[in-house]
Amino acid sequence: MVHQPISVKRKIITFSNNKLKERDDEIVTEYPLTIYLNKEEFATMVCTPTHLEEMVIGFLASEGVIRFTKEIVDFSIDVSKGFAYVQLETDSAFDHLQYTKRFIGSCCGKSRQFYFHNDVKTAKTSLSTKTVSANQCIQLMKALQENSFVFKETGGVHNASLCTNEHVVVTRTDIGRHNALDKLYGYSLLQKISIRDKILAFSGRLSSEVLTKAAKIGVGIVLSKAAPTDLAIKLAEDLNITTVGFIRGESFNIYSHANRITL
Amino acid sequence: MVHQPISVKRKIITFSNNKLKERDDEIVTEYPLTIYLNKEEFATMVCTPTHLEEMVIGFLASEGVIRFTKEIVDFSIDVSKGFAYVQLETDSAFDHLQYTKRFIGSCCGKSRQFYFHNDVKTAKTSLSTKTVSANQCIQLMKALQENSFVFKETGGVHNASLCTNEHVVVTRTDIGRHNALDKLYGYSLLQKISIRDKILAFSGRLSSEVLTKAAKIGVGIVLSKAAPTDLAIKLAEDLNITTVGFIRGESFNIYSHANRITL
Repeated sequence: MVHQPISVKRKIITFSNNKLKERDDEIVTEYPLTIYLNKEEFATMVCTPTHLEEMVIGFLASEGVIRFTKEIVDFSIDVSKGFAYVQLETDSAFDHLQYTKRFIGSCCGKSRQFYFHNDVKTAKTSLSTKTVSANQCIQLMKALQENSFVFKETGGVHNASLCTNEHVVVTRTDIGRHNALDKLYGYSLLQKISIRDKILAFSGRLSSEVLTKAAKIGVGIVLSKAAPTDLAIKLAEDLNITTVGFIRGESFNIYSHANRITL
Repeated sequence: MVHQPISVKRKIITFSNNKLKERDDEIVTEYPLTIYLNKEEFATMVCTPTHLEEMVIGFLASEGVIRFTKEIVDFSIDVSKGFAYVQLETDSAFDHLQYTKRFIGSCCGKSRQFYFHNDVKTAKTSLSTKTVSANQCIQLMKALQENSFVFKETGGVHNASLCTNEHVVVTRTDIGRHNALDKLYGYSLLQKISIRDKILAFSGRLSSEVLTKAAKIGVGIVLSKAAPTDLAIKLAEDLNITTVGFIRGESFNIYSHANRITL
Protein backbone atom coordinates (compact mmCIF):
# COMPACT_ATOMS: atom_id res chain seq x y z
CA MET A 1 0.00 0.00 0.00
CA VAL A 2 1.22 3.49 -0.88
CA HIS A 3 1.78 5.65 2.18
CA GLN A 4 1.37 9.36 2.52
CA PRO A 5 4.00 11.16 4.61
CA ILE A 6 2.86 12.43 8.01
CA SER A 7 5.16 15.41 7.65
CA VAL A 8 7.10 17.08 4.86
CA LYS A 9 10.22 19.22 4.68
CA ARG A 10 9.75 22.80 3.53
CA LYS A 11 11.90 25.88 3.16
CA ILE A 12 10.69 28.59 5.51
CA ILE A 13 11.98 32.01 6.56
CA THR A 14 12.77 32.51 10.24
CA PHE A 15 12.84 35.88 11.99
CA SER A 16 15.13 35.86 15.02
CA ASN A 17 17.59 38.39 16.53
CA ASN A 18 16.17 40.98 14.14
CA LYS A 19 17.29 38.97 11.10
CA LEU A 20 15.48 36.97 8.44
CA LYS A 21 17.08 33.64 7.52
CA GLU A 22 16.02 30.73 5.30
CA ARG A 23 16.00 27.25 6.78
CA ASP A 24 14.36 23.83 6.41
CA ASP A 25 11.41 23.01 8.63
CA GLU A 26 9.30 19.93 9.24
CA ILE A 27 5.61 20.63 8.51
CA VAL A 28 2.78 18.36 9.60
CA THR A 29 0.62 16.90 6.83
CA GLU A 30 -3.12 17.40 6.46
CA TYR A 31 -4.77 14.86 4.20
CA PRO A 32 -8.36 14.84 2.88
CA LEU A 33 -9.91 11.38 2.55
CA THR A 34 -13.33 11.05 0.96
CA ILE A 35 -15.44 8.02 1.81
CA TYR A 36 -17.66 6.48 -0.84
CA LEU A 37 -20.29 4.29 0.78
CA ASN A 38 -22.14 1.91 -1.55
CA LYS A 39 -20.86 4.05 -4.45
CA GLU A 40 -22.30 7.28 -2.99
CA GLU A 41 -20.15 10.08 -1.58
CA PHE A 42 -20.66 9.96 2.17
CA ALA A 43 -18.16 12.27 3.91
CA THR A 44 -14.71 13.84 3.62
CA MET A 45 -12.38 13.54 6.60
CA VAL A 46 -9.33 15.78 6.89
CA CYS A 47 -6.74 13.84 8.83
CA THR A 48 -3.20 12.72 9.54
CA PRO A 49 -2.65 9.94 6.96
CA THR A 50 -2.01 6.98 9.28
CA HIS A 51 -4.24 3.99 10.06
CA LEU A 52 -6.77 5.09 7.46
CA GLU A 53 -8.65 1.79 7.42
CA GLU A 54 -9.16 1.96 11.19
CA MET A 55 -10.29 5.55 10.90
CA VAL A 56 -12.88 4.88 8.21
CA ILE A 57 -14.26 1.83 10.02
CA GLY A 58 -14.34 3.68 13.35
CA PHE A 59 -16.06 6.63 11.74
CA LEU A 60 -18.73 4.47 10.07
CA ALA A 61 -19.39 2.68 13.38
CA SER A 62 -19.50 6.01 15.20
CA GLU A 63 -22.04 7.31 12.68
CA GLY A 64 -24.19 4.24 13.20
CA VAL A 65 -23.68 2.98 9.64
CA ILE A 66 -22.13 -0.33 10.75
CA ARG A 67 -21.94 -2.23 14.03
CA PHE A 68 -19.41 -4.91 13.07
CA THR A 69 -16.68 -5.06 10.44
CA LYS A 70 -18.32 -8.15 8.91
CA GLU A 71 -21.05 -5.88 7.51
CA ILE A 72 -18.40 -4.53 5.14
CA VAL A 73 -18.09 -6.83 2.10
CA ASP A 74 -15.59 -4.75 0.14
CA PHE A 75 -13.08 -2.14 1.30
CA SER A 76 -10.31 -0.35 -0.54
CA ILE A 77 -8.40 2.89 -0.21
CA ASP A 78 -6.79 4.79 -3.07
CA VAL A 79 -4.21 6.53 -0.88
CA SER A 80 -2.64 8.66 -3.60
CA LYS A 81 -6.01 10.11 -4.68
CA GLY A 82 -7.55 10.25 -1.18
CA PHE A 83 -10.60 8.00 -1.65
CA ALA A 84 -11.94 5.15 0.46
CA TYR A 85 -14.50 2.81 -1.13
CA VAL A 86 -16.75 0.89 1.24
CA GLN A 87 -19.35 -1.62 0.10
CA LEU A 88 -21.82 -2.92 2.68
CA GLU A 89 -23.93 -6.10 2.66
CA THR A 90 -26.99 -3.93 2.37
CA ASP A 91 -26.92 -1.88 -0.80
CA SER A 92 -29.03 1.01 0.44
CA ALA A 93 -28.05 4.64 0.12
CA PHE A 94 -27.22 6.68 3.24
CA ASP A 95 -28.14 10.28 3.74
CA HIS A 96 -25.39 11.67 5.92
CA LEU A 97 -27.35 14.87 6.43
CA GLN A 98 -30.07 12.84 8.10
CA TYR A 99 -27.47 11.53 10.55
CA THR A 100 -26.48 15.00 11.66
CA LYS A 101 -30.02 16.33 12.09
CA ARG A 102 -30.56 18.08 15.38
CA PHE A 103 -32.08 15.79 17.98
CA ILE A 104 -34.76 17.41 20.10
CA GLY A 105 -35.52 15.55 23.32
CA SER A 106 -39.25 15.09 23.82
CA CYS A 107 -39.16 15.86 27.52
CA CYS A 108 -37.17 18.94 28.32
CA GLY A 109 -34.94 18.82 31.36
CA LYS A 110 -35.05 15.07 31.58
CA SER A 111 -33.98 14.13 28.11
CA ARG A 112 -30.39 13.45 27.19
CA GLN A 113 -28.00 16.16 26.13
CA PHE A 114 -27.40 14.74 22.66
CA TYR A 115 -27.86 17.12 19.82
CA PHE A 116 -27.44 14.77 16.84
CA HIS A 117 -29.73 11.92 15.86
CA ASN A 118 -26.96 9.41 15.20
CA ASP A 119 -25.62 9.88 18.73
CA VAL A 120 -28.96 8.90 20.22
CA LYS A 121 -28.74 5.71 18.21
CA THR A 122 -25.11 4.77 18.89
CA ALA A 123 -23.86 6.19 22.23
CA LYS A 124 -24.35 3.59 24.94
CA THR A 125 -24.73 4.01 28.71
CA SER A 126 -21.67 2.41 30.27
CA LEU A 127 -22.25 -0.79 32.24
CA SER A 128 -18.59 -0.96 33.27
CA THR A 129 -17.86 -1.80 36.92
CA LYS A 130 -14.14 -1.23 36.41
CA THR A 131 -12.18 0.86 38.89
CA VAL A 132 -8.77 2.54 38.58
CA SER A 133 -6.52 3.95 41.26
CA ALA A 134 -5.51 7.60 41.46
CA ASN A 135 -1.89 6.63 40.93
CA GLN A 136 -2.77 4.56 37.84
CA CYS A 137 -4.56 7.59 36.33
CA ILE A 138 -1.37 9.61 36.73
CA GLN A 139 0.87 6.83 35.36
CA LEU A 140 -1.35 6.22 32.31
CA MET A 141 -1.35 9.92 31.39
CA LYS A 142 2.46 9.93 31.64
CA ALA A 143 2.61 6.85 29.39
CA LEU A 144 0.28 8.52 26.84
CA GLN A 145 2.59 11.51 26.67
CA GLU A 146 5.69 9.32 26.35
CA ASN A 147 4.06 7.30 23.56
CA SER A 148 3.11 10.46 21.75
CA PHE A 149 3.95 11.59 18.30
CA VAL A 150 7.04 13.56 17.44
CA PHE A 151 5.17 16.77 16.70
CA LYS A 152 5.18 18.09 20.24
CA GLU A 153 6.75 21.31 19.04
CA THR A 154 4.13 22.02 16.42
CA GLY A 155 1.32 21.50 18.92
CA GLY A 156 -2.26 20.65 18.17
CA VAL A 157 -1.79 16.96 17.41
CA HIS A 158 -4.18 14.85 19.47
CA ASN A 159 -3.17 11.54 21.01
CA ALA A 160 -5.64 8.95 22.24
CA SER A 161 -4.90 5.60 23.92
CA LEU A 162 -6.83 2.56 25.02
CA CYS A 163 -5.33 1.27 28.29
CA THR A 164 -5.60 -1.42 30.90
CA ASN A 165 -5.03 -0.27 34.49
CA GLU A 166 -1.30 -0.82 34.08
CA HIS A 167 -0.49 -0.42 30.38
CA VAL A 168 -1.23 1.49 27.20
CA VAL A 169 -2.60 -1.06 24.70
CA VAL A 170 -2.71 1.15 21.61
CA THR A 171 -2.14 4.84 20.82
CA ARG A 172 -3.46 6.71 17.80
CA THR A 173 -2.65 10.24 16.71
CA ASP A 174 -4.30 12.78 14.46
CA ILE A 175 -4.52 16.52 13.82
CA GLY A 176 -8.30 16.07 14.26
CA ARG A 177 -9.39 15.04 17.75
CA HIS A 178 -12.32 12.93 16.55
CA ASN A 179 -10.11 11.20 13.98
CA ALA A 180 -7.75 9.96 16.72
CA LEU A 181 -10.77 8.49 18.51
CA ASP A 182 -12.21 7.01 15.31
CA LYS A 183 -8.86 5.28 14.70
CA LEU A 184 -9.03 3.73 18.18
CA TYR A 185 -12.63 2.67 17.59
CA GLY A 186 -11.69 1.08 14.27
CA TYR A 187 -8.75 -0.68 15.91
CA SER A 188 -10.97 -2.16 18.61
CA LEU A 189 -13.50 -3.41 16.01
CA LEU A 190 -10.84 -4.86 13.70
CA GLN A 191 -8.90 -6.53 16.54
CA LYS A 192 -12.14 -7.53 18.31
CA ILE A 193 -10.71 -6.49 21.69
CA SER A 194 -13.00 -6.10 24.68
CA ILE A 195 -13.65 -2.48 25.54
CA ARG A 196 -15.68 -2.43 28.71
CA ASP A 197 -12.56 -3.17 30.79
CA LYS A 198 -10.46 -0.51 29.05
CA ILE A 199 -9.67 3.10 29.90
CA LEU A 200 -9.52 5.90 27.33
CA ALA A 201 -6.68 8.41 27.80
CA PHE A 202 -6.85 11.55 25.67
CA SER A 203 -4.47 14.49 25.25
CA GLY A 204 -7.04 17.16 24.46
CA ARG A 205 -10.08 18.86 25.92
CA LEU A 206 -13.06 16.66 26.80
CA SER A 207 -15.73 18.22 24.59
CA SER A 208 -19.21 16.74 24.19
CA GLU A 209 -18.02 15.24 20.92
CA VAL A 210 -15.12 13.44 22.62
CA LEU A 211 -17.40 12.20 25.37
CA THR A 212 -19.97 10.95 22.87
CA LYS A 213 -17.24 9.11 20.94
CA ALA A 214 -16.04 7.52 24.19
CA ALA A 215 -19.57 6.26 24.85
CA LYS A 216 -19.78 4.87 21.32
CA ILE A 217 -16.45 3.09 21.70
CA GLY A 218 -17.81 1.75 24.98
CA VAL A 219 -15.31 2.76 27.68
CA GLY A 220 -16.41 3.61 31.23
CA ILE A 221 -13.44 5.78 32.25
CA VAL A 222 -11.99 8.74 30.33
CA LEU A 223 -8.72 10.45 31.35
CA SER A 224 -7.44 13.75 30.00
CA LYS A 225 -4.75 16.26 30.76
CA ALA A 226 -7.15 19.06 29.78
CA ALA A 227 -10.55 20.20 31.09
CA PRO A 228 -14.06 19.06 30.14
CA THR A 229 -16.91 21.30 28.98
CA ASP A 230 -20.16 21.47 30.96
CA LEU A 231 -22.01 19.60 28.20
CA ALA A 232 -19.42 16.81 28.30
CA ILE A 233 -19.89 16.49 32.07
CA LYS A 234 -23.69 16.33 31.71
CA LEU A 235 -23.34 13.61 29.07
CA ALA A 236 -20.83 11.73 31.25
CA GLU A 237 -23.18 11.84 34.25
CA ASP A 238 -26.02 10.59 32.11
CA LEU A 239 -24.01 7.88 30.30
CA ASN A 240 -22.41 6.60 33.52
CA ILE A 241 -18.90 7.52 32.40
CA THR A 242 -16.16 8.59 34.83
CA THR A 243 -14.34 11.70 33.59
CA VAL A 244 -10.96 12.68 35.01
CA GLY A 245 -9.31 15.87 33.76
CA PHE A 246 -6.36 18.17 34.36
CA ILE A 247 -4.04 15.25 35.06
CA ARG A 248 -0.81 17.17 35.59
CA GLY A 249 2.05 16.11 37.80
CA GLU A 250 0.59 14.28 40.78
CA SER A 251 -2.88 15.83 40.79
CA PHE A 252 -6.13 15.77 38.81
CA ASN A 253 -9.85 16.54 38.95
CA ILE A 254 -12.80 14.13 38.86
CA TYR A 255 -15.88 15.54 37.14
CA SER A 256 -18.34 12.63 37.10
CA HIS A 257 -18.91 9.19 38.66
CA ALA A 258 -16.00 9.43 41.12
CA ASN A 259 -16.88 5.98 42.48
CA ARG A 260 -14.62 4.36 39.84
CA ILE A 261 -11.51 6.14 41.18
CA THR A 262 -9.85 4.49 44.21
CA LEU A 263 -7.06 5.72 46.48
CA MET B 1 -32.11 39.07 24.61
CA VAL B 2 -31.58 36.12 26.94
CA HIS B 3 -27.93 35.24 27.36
CA GLN B 4 -26.38 31.86 27.95
CA PRO B 5 -23.49 31.75 30.40
CA ILE B 6 -20.03 31.18 28.90
CA SER B 7 -19.06 29.19 31.97
CA VAL B 8 -20.82 27.58 34.91
CA LYS B 9 -19.84 26.68 38.46
CA ARG B 10 -19.77 22.99 39.29
CA LYS B 11 -18.78 20.88 42.26
CA ILE B 12 -15.82 18.69 41.35
CA ILE B 13 -13.50 16.37 43.26
CA THR B 14 -9.80 17.22 43.29
CA PHE B 15 -7.01 14.72 43.88
CA SER B 16 -3.91 16.36 45.32
CA ASN B 17 -1.33 15.37 47.97
CA ASN B 18 -2.85 11.89 47.93
CA LYS B 19 -6.21 13.21 49.12
CA LEU B 20 -9.60 13.66 47.48
CA LYS B 21 -11.39 16.92 48.23
CA GLU B 22 -14.59 18.52 46.94
CA ARG B 23 -14.41 22.07 45.60
CA ASP B 24 -16.14 24.45 43.21
CA ASP B 25 -14.73 24.80 39.71
CA GLU B 26 -15.48 27.01 36.73
CA ILE B 27 -16.40 24.91 33.68
CA VAL B 28 -16.54 26.29 30.16
CA THR B 29 -19.90 26.08 28.37
CA GLU B 30 -20.55 24.22 25.12
CA TYR B 31 -23.73 25.30 23.40
CA PRO B 32 -25.44 23.69 20.36
CA LEU B 33 -27.12 26.18 18.01
CA THR B 34 -29.16 24.83 15.10
CA ILE B 35 -29.68 27.06 12.07
CA TYR B 36 -32.96 26.94 10.20
CA LEU B 37 -32.55 28.46 6.77
CA ASN B 38 -35.79 29.29 4.90
CA LYS B 39 -37.58 26.98 7.39
CA GLU B 40 -35.28 24.01 6.60
CA GLU B 41 -32.76 22.64 9.08
CA PHE B 42 -29.35 23.64 7.69
CA ALA B 43 -26.63 22.93 10.28
CA THR B 44 -25.89 22.62 13.99
CA MET B 45 -22.93 24.54 15.37
CA VAL B 46 -21.50 23.67 18.78
CA CYS B 47 -20.03 26.85 20.19
CA THR B 48 -19.31 29.26 23.01
CA PRO B 49 -22.59 31.21 23.34
CA THR B 50 -21.36 34.72 22.54
CA HIS B 51 -21.96 36.87 19.42
CA LEU B 52 -24.33 34.27 17.99
CA GLU B 53 -25.75 36.57 15.31
CA GLU B 54 -22.25 37.32 14.02
CA MET B 55 -21.41 33.62 14.07
CA VAL B 56 -24.48 32.57 12.08
CA ILE B 57 -24.03 35.33 9.50
CA GLY B 58 -20.31 34.61 9.18
CA PHE B 59 -21.02 30.90 8.78
CA LEU B 60 -23.66 31.46 6.09
CA ALA B 61 -21.27 33.78 4.21
CA SER B 62 -18.46 31.28 4.62
CA GLU B 63 -20.67 28.51 3.21
CA GLY B 64 -21.53 30.68 0.21
CA VAL B 65 -25.21 30.98 1.15
CA ILE B 66 -25.10 34.79 1.41
CA ARG B 67 -22.69 37.47 0.28
CA PHE B 68 -24.15 40.48 2.10
CA THR B 69 -26.31 40.81 5.21
CA LYS B 70 -29.02 42.58 3.17
CA GLU B 71 -29.90 39.21 1.59
CA ILE B 72 -31.29 38.23 5.00
CA VAL B 73 -34.87 39.54 5.36
CA ASP B 74 -35.65 38.00 8.73
CA PHE B 75 -33.36 36.84 11.53
CA SER B 76 -34.09 35.68 15.05
CA ILE B 77 -32.42 33.51 17.67
CA ASP B 78 -34.22 31.56 20.37
CA VAL B 79 -31.26 31.52 22.75
CA SER B 80 -32.84 29.37 25.45
CA LYS B 81 -33.78 26.61 22.98
CA GLY B 82 -30.69 26.96 20.77
CA PHE B 83 -32.27 27.78 17.41
CA ALA B 84 -31.48 30.47 14.86
CA TYR B 85 -34.09 31.24 12.17
CA VAL B 86 -32.84 32.83 8.99
CA GLN B 87 -35.08 33.88 6.11
CA LEU B 88 -33.46 34.92 2.86
CA GLU B 89 -34.83 37.05 0.00
CA THR B 90 -34.76 33.96 -2.17
CA ASP B 91 -36.98 31.24 -0.77
CA SER B 92 -35.11 28.28 -2.21
CA ALA B 93 -34.01 25.27 -0.21
CA PHE B 94 -30.32 24.62 0.40
CA ASP B 95 -28.72 21.23 0.44
CA HIS B 96 -25.87 21.52 2.90
CA LEU B 97 -24.55 18.14 1.84
CA GLN B 98 -24.05 19.53 -1.64
CA TYR B 99 -21.91 22.28 -0.16
CA THR B 100 -19.56 19.82 1.47
CA LYS B 101 -19.15 17.55 -1.55
CA ARG B 102 -15.56 16.71 -2.34
CA PHE B 103 -14.15 18.97 -4.99
CA ILE B 104 -12.01 17.20 -7.55
CA GLY B 105 -9.77 19.51 -9.54
CA SER B 106 -10.02 18.85 -13.24
CA CYS B 107 -6.30 19.13 -13.85
CA CYS B 108 -4.26 17.21 -11.35
CA GLY B 109 -1.16 18.88 -10.01
CA LYS B 110 -2.16 22.30 -11.21
CA SER B 111 -5.57 22.63 -9.62
CA ARG B 112 -6.16 24.24 -6.24
CA GLN B 113 -5.90 22.35 -3.00
CA PHE B 114 -9.55 22.86 -2.04
CA TYR B 115 -11.43 19.76 -1.13
CA PHE B 116 -14.95 21.17 -0.70
CA HIS B 117 -17.13 22.67 -3.40
CA ASN B 118 -18.26 25.67 -1.38
CA ASP B 119 -14.62 26.70 -0.82
CA VAL B 120 -14.00 26.85 -4.56
CA LYS B 121 -16.94 29.24 -4.79
CA THR B 122 -16.16 31.49 -1.82
CA ALA B 123 -12.42 31.59 -1.05
CA LYS B 124 -10.84 34.52 -2.87
CA THR B 125 -7.25 35.09 -3.98
CA SER B 126 -5.94 38.02 -1.95
CA LEU B 127 -5.27 41.24 -3.86
CA SER B 128 -3.91 42.94 -0.75
CA THR B 129 -0.72 44.97 -1.16
CA LYS B 130 -0.49 45.61 2.58
CA THR B 131 2.78 45.10 4.43
CA VAL B 132 3.49 44.67 8.13
CA SER B 133 6.78 44.96 10.01
CA ALA B 134 8.35 42.09 11.93
CA ASN B 135 7.98 44.05 15.16
CA GLN B 136 4.27 44.71 14.47
CA CYS B 137 3.69 40.97 14.01
CA ILE B 138 5.16 40.37 17.45
CA GLN B 139 3.22 43.23 19.07
CA LEU B 140 -0.11 42.16 17.55
CA MET B 141 0.30 38.59 18.81
CA LYS B 142 1.03 39.97 22.30
CA ALA B 143 -2.10 42.14 22.09
CA LEU B 144 -4.21 39.14 21.00
CA GLN B 145 -3.03 37.20 24.02
CA GLU B 146 -3.70 40.12 26.37
CA ASN B 147 -7.20 40.60 24.93
CA SER B 148 -7.91 36.92 25.37
CA PHE B 149 -10.61 35.21 27.26
CA VAL B 150 -10.33 34.26 30.90
CA PHE B 151 -10.18 30.52 30.24
CA LYS B 152 -6.44 30.32 29.82
CA GLU B 153 -6.29 27.67 32.50
CA THR B 154 -8.84 25.39 30.87
CA GLY B 155 -7.02 25.59 27.53
CA GLY B 156 -8.43 24.93 24.10
CA VAL B 157 -10.35 28.19 23.67
CA HIS B 158 -9.47 29.84 20.39
CA ASN B 159 -9.04 33.58 20.01
CA ALA B 160 -9.10 35.40 16.69
CA SER B 161 -8.59 39.11 16.03
CA LEU B 162 -8.85 41.48 13.10
CA CYS B 163 -6.08 44.08 13.38
CA THR B 164 -4.60 47.14 11.75
CA ASN B 165 -0.79 47.32 11.75
CA GLU B 166 -0.88 48.96 15.19
CA HIS B 167 -4.08 47.85 16.92
CA VAL B 168 -6.47 44.99 17.50
CA VAL B 169 -9.85 46.09 16.08
CA VAL B 170 -11.99 43.21 17.35
CA THR B 171 -11.39 39.87 19.11
CA ARG B 172 -13.73 36.89 19.12
CA THR B 173 -13.42 33.71 21.13
CA ASP B 174 -14.84 30.21 20.85
CA ILE B 175 -14.19 26.63 21.84
CA GLY B 176 -14.44 25.87 18.10
CA ARG B 177 -11.67 27.37 15.98
CA HIS B 178 -13.88 27.94 12.91
CA ASN B 179 -16.59 29.52 15.10
CA ALA B 180 -14.17 32.21 16.31
CA LEU B 181 -13.40 32.98 12.67
CA ASP B 182 -17.07 32.91 11.65
CA LYS B 183 -17.80 35.45 14.41
CA LEU B 184 -15.11 37.75 13.00
CA TYR B 185 -16.48 37.31 9.49
CA GLY B 186 -20.01 38.11 10.69
CA TYR B 187 -18.70 41.16 12.56
CA SER B 188 -16.99 42.47 9.44
CA LEU B 189 -20.15 42.01 7.33
CA LEU B 190 -22.47 43.56 9.93
CA GLN B 191 -20.14 46.51 10.60
CA LYS B 192 -19.25 46.80 6.89
CA ILE B 193 -15.57 47.32 7.72
CA SER B 194 -12.95 47.04 5.01
CA ILE B 195 -10.98 43.82 5.22
CA ARG B 196 -8.29 43.97 2.61
CA ASP B 197 -6.19 46.30 4.81
CA LYS B 198 -6.64 44.13 7.93
CA ILE B 199 -4.50 41.40 9.48
CA LEU B 200 -5.90 38.23 11.02
CA ALA B 201 -4.24 37.09 14.27
CA PHE B 202 -5.17 33.62 15.50
CA SER B 203 -4.24 31.69 18.63
CA GLY B 204 -4.40 28.19 17.18
CA ARG B 205 -2.86 26.04 14.51
CA LEU B 206 -3.17 27.21 10.90
CA SER B 207 -5.05 24.29 9.38
CA SER B 208 -6.36 24.30 5.81
CA GLU B 209 -9.77 25.14 7.25
CA VAL B 210 -8.44 28.23 9.05
CA LEU B 211 -6.60 29.34 5.93
CA THR B 212 -9.68 28.86 3.77
CA LYS B 213 -11.77 30.89 6.24
CA ALA B 214 -9.13 33.65 6.15
CA ALA B 215 -9.39 33.74 2.36
CA LYS B 216 -13.18 33.93 2.58
CA ILE B 217 -13.01 36.77 5.10
CA GLY B 218 -10.60 38.44 2.69
CA VAL B 219 -7.41 39.15 4.66
CA GLY B 220 -3.96 39.03 3.05
CA ILE B 221 -1.88 38.39 6.19
CA VAL B 222 -2.47 35.68 8.83
CA LEU B 223 -0.50 35.57 12.11
CA SER B 224 -0.45 32.66 14.56
CA LYS B 225 1.46 31.56 17.60
CA ALA B 226 1.20 27.95 16.37
CA ALA B 227 2.35 26.12 13.23
CA PRO B 228 0.63 25.67 9.87
CA THR B 229 -0.05 22.37 8.11
CA ASP B 230 1.41 21.66 4.68
CA LEU B 231 -2.03 21.93 3.08
CA ALA B 232 -2.56 25.35 4.69
CA ILE B 233 0.78 26.53 3.27
CA LYS B 234 -0.09 25.26 -0.23
CA LEU B 235 -3.45 27.08 -0.05
CA ALA B 236 -1.74 30.24 1.24
CA GLU B 237 0.78 30.17 -1.60
CA ASP B 238 -2.00 29.72 -4.12
CA LEU B 239 -4.35 32.33 -2.59
CA ASN B 240 -1.58 34.95 -2.23
CA ILE B 241 -1.85 35.01 1.58
CA THR B 242 1.14 35.66 3.86
CA THR B 243 1.28 33.16 6.72
CA VAL B 244 3.37 33.84 9.81
CA GLY B 245 3.51 31.19 12.54
CA PHE B 246 5.26 30.33 15.79
CA ILE B 247 5.21 33.94 16.94
CA ARG B 248 6.76 33.47 20.37
CA GLY B 249 8.83 36.02 22.23
CA GLU B 250 10.77 38.00 19.64
CA SER B 251 10.89 35.43 16.87
CA PHE B 252 8.60 33.80 14.29
CA ASN B 253 8.51 31.88 11.01
CA ILE B 254 7.21 33.00 7.62
CA TYR B 255 5.70 30.19 5.55
CA SER B 256 4.34 31.93 2.44
CA HIS B 257 4.53 35.27 0.59
CA ALA B 258 7.28 36.73 2.77
CA ASN B 259 7.25 39.91 0.67
CA ARG B 260 4.55 41.41 2.91
CA ILE B 261 6.81 41.24 5.99
CA THR B 262 9.28 44.14 6.38
CA LEU B 263 12.16 44.64 8.81
